[in-house]
Amino acid sequence: MKKTALIMAGGRGERFWPKSRKSLPKQFLSLTDDGRTMIQLTVERIRPLIAMEDIFISTNRAYRDLVLEQLPEIPPENILCEPVGRNTAPCIGLGAVHMAKKYEDALMVVLPSDHLIKYHQMFLNALKDGCSIAEKGSNLVTIGITPDYPETGYGYIKFRPDEAEGNAYAVDRFVEKPDIETAKEYLETEEYLWNSGMFIWKVSTVLDNLRQLLPDMYDNLEKIGDAIGTEKQEMILEKTFPELESVSIDYGIMEKAKNIYILPGVFGWDDVGSWLAVERIQKSNESGNVVTGNIITIHCKNNVIQGGKKLIAAVGLEDLIIVDTEDATLICDKGSASDIKMVLENLKICNREEYL
Amino acid sequence: MKKTALIMAGGRGERFWPKSRKSLPKQFLSLTDDGRTMIQLTVERIRPLIAMEDIFISTNRAYRDLVLEQLPEIPPENILCEPVGRNTAPCIGLGAVHMAKKYEDALMVVLPSDHLIKYHQMFLNALKDGCSIAEKGSNLVTIGITPDYPETGYGYIKFRPDEAEGNAYAVDRFVEKPDIETAKEYLETEEYLWNSGMFIWKVSTVLDNLRQLLPDMYDNLEKIGDAIGTEKQEMILEKTFPELESVSIDYGIMEKAKNIYILPGVFGWDDVGSWLAVERIQKSNESGNVVTGNIITIHCKNNVIQGGKKLIAAVGLEDLIIVDTEDATLICDKGSASDIKMVLENLKICNREEYL
Repeated sequence: MKKTALIMAGGRGERFWPKSRKSLPKQFLSLTDDGRTMIQLTVERIRPLIAMEDIFISTNRAYRDLVLEQLPEIPPENILCEPVGRNTAPCIGLGAVHMAKKYEDALMVVLPSDHLIKYHQMFLNALKDGCSIAEKGSNLVTIGITPDYPETGYGYIKFRPDEAEGNAYAVDRFVEKPDIETAKEYLETEEYLWNSGMFIWKVSTVLDNLRQLLPDMYDNLEKIGDAIGTEKQEMILEKTFPELESVSIDYGIMEKAKNIYILPGVFGWDDVGSWLAVERIQKSNESGNVVTGNIITIHCKNNVIQGGKKLIAAVGLEDLIIVDTEDATLICDKGSASDIKMVLENLKICNREEYL
Repeated sequence: MKKTALIMAGGRGERFWPKSRKSLPKQFLSLTDDGRTMIQLTVERIRPLIAMEDIFISTNRAYRDLVLEQLPEIPPENILCEPVGRNTAPCIGLGAVHMAKKYEDALMVVLPSDHLIKYHQMFLNALKDGCSIAEKGSNLVTIGITPDYPETGYGYIKFRPDEAEGNAYAVDRFVEKPDIETAKEYLETEEYLWNSGMFIWKVSTVLDNLRQLLPDMYDNLEKIGDAIGTEKQEMILEKTFPELESVSIDYGIMEKAKNIYILPGVFGWDDVGSWLAVERIQKSNESGNVVTGNIITIHCKNNVIQGGKKLIAAVGLEDLIIVDTEDATLICDKGSASDIKMVLENLKICNREEYL
């Protein structure tokens, strides 16, 4: 069966401020050594499995030009622009109606645009496994990440080890971000995987589930789908999409649907959740500093310093994150990385839009 | 007797990098809250005692325009430009021959241009006392600072408590920067003062001492003095000044001369020796941060942050010095302030003149 992909690239992650901005979210940034952006790497990874013409990018209208620029090989009509952000269920629904228009039915791989994966072949193997399982009947497949520590920042998915389907297991339930004690228990049972936000199903399967579980949304998506290729396409999307309920695919479908399977993924996944991730994904020098740009370090260790043309002289520093951009510089203790959002709140309160 | 002043402003202090540069040394920077530069404050302080037309500024030729710009009320002919830096003895000698040309004899107050003084009236009183003592016979007067802790970064001057002249004491000897143990002993004896580099004497007295103790230098200074006001003035200075021995007034004169007196100064003196001084001289907010410019601080305490137009967001920081300029940013742990010179060494080795 034809394989298609929907890469979700509408996010506005604030955790990479000041490099990420409203006008340039994380998926359009290069955070690795090789210079390619997160979304470019995402497309690159699935090329051996899915043709460029079958890769759809769902994003906000504001980012259309960024997508065109960074992914010139993606057909422009495959860039699906949401007039407003409405969480993942409408986003995936919009992708599904486009794919249904192009192909009667197809396999649909849904991927975030801002994660990193180290072992490409293992990842591709997982996608292939997922496709095989999704092709049978009306299975919904998600890819879980085998946790290696009790992370409290991710949702978890409990599976039933005694109910396998190929390499996948039947899903027992989706659970929200746990506290540390609960996360430790999850880790110990070995029956929980991290929710990676990657899904595989047939277009027909996800649309069937939308019809049953989110019927109002389905009706509106049908209208949008009917207009594709007509002169009313834009107008109907503009009018109808904002009316869709803002709900996640997890909550709207996955927690309620049947025949859900999860593939345990072990392919060096990283959600690159904050500046701290840069230490994991970029090479550090012998002092443990991860340094980009015009930097002098004197007696510094274990810092992340992301500069550019401007000289940054770091003296006697330890465990700091320093990010310099044209109009703003962040200097943050590693232990306070989660407080970067307070900077953004402060900027919002003070109406300093130019920095957001 | 006429009172004149020589303000020495040829220094190239590197400890305020990146704000201070070869092209803009510390004395031309504003490091206080009030916006005036160090040299402007120096002139301002002595105005009640010395007329503008009797204040001479000795500096490097490269800084002539800066002096003209920052001190427009100083007569341009009072700006004495050294073709090259030759330490304080030639600098003071050059001032003395200019003053001798203008007035047969006069009192000469010699002051650094990059120190701060908190209590102006007490400072002026000390200068007046010094003038009275210097006016008598051939006394050389220096102003010492009463130490309040065992500083190892200053030279000390030992005085003889039983040999007073007005409010001053006879100087026993000049001593180099001590180690911490020696500094503690000095503090305990109460017979040592910090060497502030401030002197008062008659022009005739200092010239007499130069003639006796540095006769070669005196001969050359005489040539320079004879040419003042003639068309050969510049040419002679250019040719002769570089030939003067590079020696400090302390070593060349004060350690060998007779009739040296020291006035204990208690007027809130600060040599503003490094960025750490900014904490002493500028107001901190309730978190102990001393902040200038476009700054957001989140959970920060006891930092010195000197920014400008560019936004600096500081998150979870403690005891750092952050200085942002157009082309370079310094981020330095307070405990490592003395390592800033290593940044400059690095820049020199790499021939990155644009940052020096």
